[in-house]
Amino acid sequence: MEIGFIGLGAMGAGIARNLIKGGHQVTAWNRSPGPLETIKRDGAKAAATPADAMKGEMVFSMLANDAALEHVGFAGPLLKEAAPGLIHINMATISLPLARRLAEAHASAKIGYVACPVFGRPDAAAAAQLQLIAGGDAKLIEKVRPVLEPLGRRLVIAGDKPEQANLFKITGNFMTAVSIETYGEAIALLRKGGVDVEAFYGLMSEMYYSGSIHKLYGRIIADEKYDPPGFKLKHGYKDAGLALESAKLFEAPLPLAGLVHDHFLEAMAAGQGDKDWALIADMAAKRAGLK
Amino acid sequence: MEIGFIGLGAMGAGIARNLIKGGHQVTAWNRSPGPLETIKRDGAKAAATPADAMKGEMVFSMLANDAALEHVGFAGPLLKEAAPGLIHINMATISLPLARRLAEAHASAKIGYVACPVFGRPDAAAAAQLQLIAGGDAKLIEKVRPVLEPLGRRLVIAGDKPEQANLFKITGNFMTAVSIETYGEAIALLRKGGVDVEAFYGLMSEMYYSGSIHKLYGRIIADEKYDPPGFKLKHGYKDAGLALESAKLFEAPLPLAGLVHDHFLEAMAAGQGDKDWALIADMAAKRAGLK
Amino acid sequence: MEIGFIGLGAMGAGIARNLIKGGHQVTAWNRSPGPLETIKRDGAKAAATPADAMKGEMVFSMLANDAALEHVGFAGPLLKEAAPGLIHINMATISLPLARRLAEAHASAKIGYVACPVFGRPDAAAAAQLQLIAGGDAKLIEKVRPVLEPLGRRLVIAGDKPEQANLFKITGNFMTAVSIETYGEAIALLRKGGVDVEAFYGLMSEMYYSGSIHKLYGRIIADEKYDPPGFKLKHGYKDAGLALESAKLFEAPLPLAGLVHDHFLEAMAAGQGDKDWALIADMAAKRAGLK
Amino acid sequence: MEIGFIGLGAMGAGIARNLIKGGHQVTAWNRSPGPLETIKRDGAKAAATPADAMKGEMVFSMLANDAALEHVGFAGPLLKEAAPGLIHINMATISLPLARRLAEAHASAKIGYVACPVFGRPDAAAAAQLQLIAGGDAKLIEKVRPVLEPLGRRLVIAGDKPEQANLFKITGNFMTAVSIETYGEAIALLRKGGVDVEAFYGLMSEMYYSGSIHKLYGRIIADEKYDPPGFKLKHGYKDAGLALESAKLFEAPLPLAGLVHDHFLEAMAAGQGDKDWALIADMAAKRAGLK
Repeated sequence: MEIGFIGLGAMGAGIARNLIKGGHQVTAWNRSPGPLETIKRDGAKAAATPADAMKGEMVFSMLANDAALEHVGFAGPLLKEAAPGLIHINMATISLPLARRLAEAHASAKIGYVACPVFGRPDAAAAAQLQLIAGGDAKLIEKVRPVLEPLGRRLVIAGDKPEQANLFKITGNFMTAVSIETYGEAIALLRKGGVDVEAFYGLMSEMYYSGSIHKLYGRIIADEKYDPPGFKLKHGYKDAGLALESAKLFEAPLPLAGLVHDHFLEAMAAGQGDKDWALIADMAAKRAGLK
Repeated sequence: MEIGFIGLGAMGAGIARNLIKGGHQVTAWNRSPGPLETIKRDGAKAAATPADAMKGEMVFSMLANDAALEHVGFAGPLLKEAAPGLIHINMATISLPLARRLAEAHASAKIGYVACPVFGRPDAAAAAQLQLIAGGDAKLIEKVRPVLEPLGRRLVIAGDKPEQANLFKITGNFMTAVSIETYGEAIALLRKGGVDVEAFYGLMSEMYYSGSIHKLYGRIIADEKYDPPGFKLKHGYKDAGLALESAKLFEAPLPLAGLVHDHFLEAMAAGQGDKDWALIADMAAKRAGLK
Repeated sequence: MEIGFIGLGAMGAGIARNLIKGGHQVTAWNRSPGPLETIKRDGAKAAATPADAMKGEMVFSMLANDAALEHVGFAGPLLKEAAPGLIHINMATISLPLARRLAEAHASAKIGYVACPVFGRPDAAAAAQLQLIAGGDAKLIEKVRPVLEPLGRRLVIAGDKPEQANLFKITGNFMTAVSIETYGEAIALLRKGGVDVEAFYGLMSEMYYSGSIHKLYGRIIADEKYDPPGFKLKHGYKDAGLALESAKLFEAPLPLAGLVHDHFLEAMAAGQGDKDWALIADMAAKRAGLK
Repeated sequence: MEIGFIGLGAMGAGIARNLIKGGHQVTAWNRSPGPLETIKRDGAKAAATPADAMKGEMVFSMLANDAALEHVGFAGPLLKEAAPGLIHINMATISLPLARRLAEAHASAKIGYVACPVFGRPDAAAAAQLQLIAGGDAKLIEKVRPVLEPLGRRLVIAGDKPEQANLFKITGNFMTAVSIETYGEAIALLRKGGVDVEAFYGLMSEMYYSGSIHKLYGRIIADEKYDPPGFKLKHGYKDAGLALESAKLFEAPLPLAGLVHDHFLEAMAAGQGDKDWALIADMAAKRAGLK
């Protein structure tokens, strides 16, 4: 199948490569030229402009944030360049207001639109082990399913509106941020009380909190190792902001998100945005007078 | 071994029975007579007073709360009744101030004292599947280990002060309460946004939050089934209070505990103390205008 | 002096009328025609378009919110219509991001720009009893001072950037919102405890909280009279949002604003946006089980 | 009248002296001898034991906290020493649980009991300028009114239960703590935005927040002068704890108290308990990266 691909960051490059491996003819575009050169060696065609990537049957986009999608033109001008029948599969984690605007823009341009944000880091993208969360018209999703499924371990359907996939992803990230804060406060208290933190982490990891999030972040917090970052605090701060923006849009208060957002903001004010976002656990330790 | 046992509630009765099965000679006391009759049929001797249960090599206590321990006399008078060399193993979830006071009282009465609160519900107690968290002098713990280990799946050492086992347990409960609140806020938001909650719960339960706490409470919240209670809200409220009291004692702020405690308190004011403590998720739904 | 005036809502109409009384020749524009007819009878000229109001020495604007300013064109197109030497005095309570954007747009269009939001309700505007908060280049402010001062009781200089006047105003509103929440929580507690609320309000109003905010809102809360609204909850909700947006922009966490914002949002979800914003006190009463 | 007086701290000494000036015969007791010597020179008799101060028509107590009242024996043993018909007027700021217990103890000992906590600092006590908040049986209060009124500017009746006076006082202190936090967050934001803080404080002090609390604490925060303390942070922390304890007892959540209490606790963990309690404003500044 002829597939355009816009955005070759660490995530996008891995996904695009898997599309090529899957036998698709990929025409890729990226703002900076380096990743384009690399993917050409893997068999992709390089698009000179985003518009050149809009000429196949599908176009994937994996851009960094709302601003990048606006800049490339997905909220309007770029859609005029689309081949008839094109379906756009948008994998970025974006805000709900933009999600809604994109759905409207595609509808009025009569372009198929599926939101498909993912859970997983670049290594999972490269290994086709992502969790793919799709939102949009059920028939459209069935149409793209054969292309999407090989990119991950699992394709989950959030709902029949694209924005519902974005909300699913944002809500998942909200839970992670609160889980980090929770473990951070817990471990600060245990340390002040002289409890064996490894014994606590061990029991929690085997039984009550044996899922991947608590295992990963409990370990990081017990080791107090916030650098180099696995996921930067400034991005976690952005994601907490997306949760609060969603809370406003759907009128569903998230007091926990407000609390965690404030801690991220405090870290930003202290110039810690490039540390791992689990650094908020370190701040809990400081509030307890541990440092 | 000759073992006293004080407190035959749903938890205590199961543990006492397992001690009998393990070949120990158990002398049990309980405030109300019913459970005493039952355990006698299983082979225990009934003590007429708490003091009668203090005459063996060890005495276990599994009482409901601080007040019950004070009432029976463990903070003072009862200790005078102890046989020489007696070791007291206290399994209750109690406050840190009392934990500290009990340790001092036993030390001055020269009675061995091990705190050993447990994670697990009555069925786990009956099936000897508890997680046992021990705190106290290392030599004492080694001495009671052969008696303790058969009562559960695992014996974890929190530290060499009894209170550290209590803090371990309280901190674990704090994490559970926040996890419930988190899932509750998340699901309220998803519902307002029309996302498929089962799809969300399914992915979270398989991957990111596959530990027992999130599986259990995510299910309850998705089903909105807060009655009959698995664990009563009024007890969750008490536990959140124990966390806040610990935060004060060790000077380690727990803003998340404050937030969750307020929600429990609001439920108490509404007369909902006998519902399942996951009811705070229902309150998140109401704040979102879902009811 | 020849002065344009854009936006004849309850606040704007009163201010414009005072400019006329002060001997200025006012050319007014308003989206809906009714207020224009009224102000014509008071001696103003009616402008057919916003551009027609940009032809004098100064133009005042008093629009409802960010969107209205954008719509009229103050962030760009309208500025091209300005007479040489025009100074724009913007009295609206707007967001910091827009405040910053407006300052830039005026600078590049070489149009003088003074932000001058006000404290006070329509009756204060009509009676020239407003508190005027000016921000902008000191020389510009001195130039407009003779026109501004007669409109209020006092002209306060926030700083030499226009946005600083907006931040001053937003921060003042933040303090009011928290003061309402504080009195609301306090009175709910007093009621549950059976304390004489009038005695409490009386002492506080005479001594410790004798300022106008606590007097006004303490009275409303003691009387539980949230309808008709003096200031609508949905506007208070917007203002709390402006505070949080400012907190992000300047990286200065406002946990109190987050807490109050959540309560406003809960009221919005319950369809209470048109009640007085002191309704959040009623929610404190409900959380205490009083209703 | 023959009046006992127990507790000659900075507050108590001033009040006792005014009783002497009012023509009463005062028999005073204090734990440490220094203040007793001083008051003897002013005309009081020194009591050798607290019991010696229980022999007149009334006994005032002004002790530091719950523990001091318990220690002296007001919850039990001391009451047996009371002369027939004695009325106890308790001026301390105590917890609600103790307030309730004292009322019961006095009732069963058939001793009149009026709670009369005060607002005001030592200089106000000395100058008979206190605000006196009385709670208790209306007839009893009328009986002691002629003795109480000359001690302050105003006698306010909180309700017919003694605890209601304590709740009145605790609630007032809660409002002060939140007001400090509010001003602290506000000024931190203004500073980050470069707004003229004096201009803000000036307007607020003249108009919206012209009551004594905001004037006093706004000044301290604008000056960043937290040492020497006017009121120590550790006492503010205790008072926030009393508010939270009252919230529990009456089942009326105080989320603002939880937030402020956490900030006090953080300051305690940092060893700042002897600074002025307005130091929490400094912490807001730090969270904003200002230091």
